Amino acid sequence: MASGQFYLSCLVLGSLGSMCILFTVYWMQYWRGGFAWDGSVHMFNWHPVLMVSGMVVLYGAASLVYRLPQSWVGPKLPWKLLHAALHLIAFILTVVGLVAVFQFHNHSNIAHLYSLHSWLGITTVILFACQWSLGFAIFLLPWASLWLRSLLKPIHVFFGAAILCLSVASVISGINEKLFFSLKNATKPYASLPSEAVFANCTGLLVVAFGLLVLYVLLASSWKRPEPGILTDRQKTRLKKDK
Amino acid sequence: MASGQFYLSCLVLGSLGSMCILFTVYWMQYWRGGFAWDGSVHMFNWHPVLMVSGMVVLYGAASLVYRLPQSWVGPKLPWKLLHAALHLIAFILTVVGLVAVFQFHNHSNIAHLYSLHSWLGITTVILFACQWSLGFAIFLLPWASLWLRSLLKPIHVFFGAAILCLSVASVISGINEKLFFSLKNATKPYASLPSEAVFANCTGLLVVAFGLLVLYVLLASSWKRPEPGILTDRQKTRLKKDK
Repeated sequence: MASGQFYLSCLVLGSLGSMCILFTVYWMQYWRGGFAWDGSVHMFNWHPVLMVSGMVVLYGAASLVYRLPQSWVGPKLPWKLLHAALHLIAFILTVVGLVAVFQFHNHSNIAHLYSLHSWLGITTVILFACQWSLGFAIFLLPWASLWLRSLLKPIHVFFGAAILCLSVASVISGINEKLFFSLKNATKPYASLPSEAVFANCTGLLVVAFGLLVLYVLLASSWKRPEPGILTDRQKTRLKKDK
Repeated sequence: MASGQFYLSCLVLGSLGSMCILFTVYWMQYWRGGFAWDGSVHMFNWHPVLMVSGMVVLYGAASLVYRLPQSWVGPKLPWKLLHAALHLIAFILTVVGLVAVFQFHNHSNIAHLYSLHSWLGITTVILFACQWSLGFAIFLLPWASLWLRSLLKPIHVFFGAAILCLSVASVISGINEKLFFSLKNATKPYASLPSEAVFANCTGLLVVAFGLLVLYVLLASSWKRPEPGILTDRQKTRLKKDK
């Protein structure tokens, strides 16, 4: 049953994550003029799409690698490599998403990094960079002792979840800010809830729902990779069923 | 040592939480004209102060009641009452904070509940109301069976942490939105980072730091109230030291 619930969660997560990305693309394409890579506002449009895809959806998926029952048996190294590789792709998408907004600001003489959205966002990206580098150095390279790894593991797990929370908070404040900017001089302003506003608000709530479900799967103890020798009965049943 | 770290965390949490409230009060008093209860923008100023105090600081403190080693021994009921009472005060502050913004909107003919900030905020408050009522009905009233309680406890704990995350995300988007509104026609707009903007951005980051520290203390397993009969060695040491 625990296994069935887990795969159901994965199905819901996959659907929610795809919807988060598709909704953001549709918002930018249908109401904001689509995409380009020329410093214009159409270049900015890559920013929300890449941040939602990288910092939330792919980041969330990459975090859950060790919750797959297949990762519980056999050597851990391939799963570590997958975990690190997915997070690296998420980080690259994030950096390209930052380039999009910085180049748009340069092109239009807009100041960088003044809003709370940008302060929180850049803090989150810096934390992500530290987390990935430290994770690579300690858990993937072979030099660190077991003692050091077990000391740092809870911190790595905590910051993994914390960075996801900060990403979601950054996305929410970003969507909010973008709607106030875009609908400032519109015939139907944000306060009159035009269809774009309803659609983008719903996109924000979808991102929140995705983030919360990832956190739930991360924290549910029966889905955690058991430490060697201390498999609970529930985990044993789960492993047997998946064989 | 675990106990020392716990009380150090409480000290840092107390300082951070007080700073969050004081910074928000100072922002509203020094830059936004102070407080009143008359439907004007000075009535709105209660909104950020009460939401930060209720939904973040007091909510966070109330969540941590069962992490106090004193709560681990003796009858659980007084601690449950304290947990429920503190959360009830947090909820009342939150409702008064909502009244402040709704009355300001009515008075100034501003639409209610259109921004993503408001959608997320009201969702969070509704979840908080459900969480409190369900918690009261299941864990405080004497009718529910042990089986039902142990079934719902992980869900109650998860939503407790989730609501705090949503509160922090709502506060961040709210501060961001308020600064764009207030500094729209100012001689020094938000983009030029006047002292008010720097101060309020820092307030937002303080709220984030407070929220993350609460989550850390909530999730650190050696600080959790042990289930009867399964005290770990670390928890035993902690209990002995506190006697």
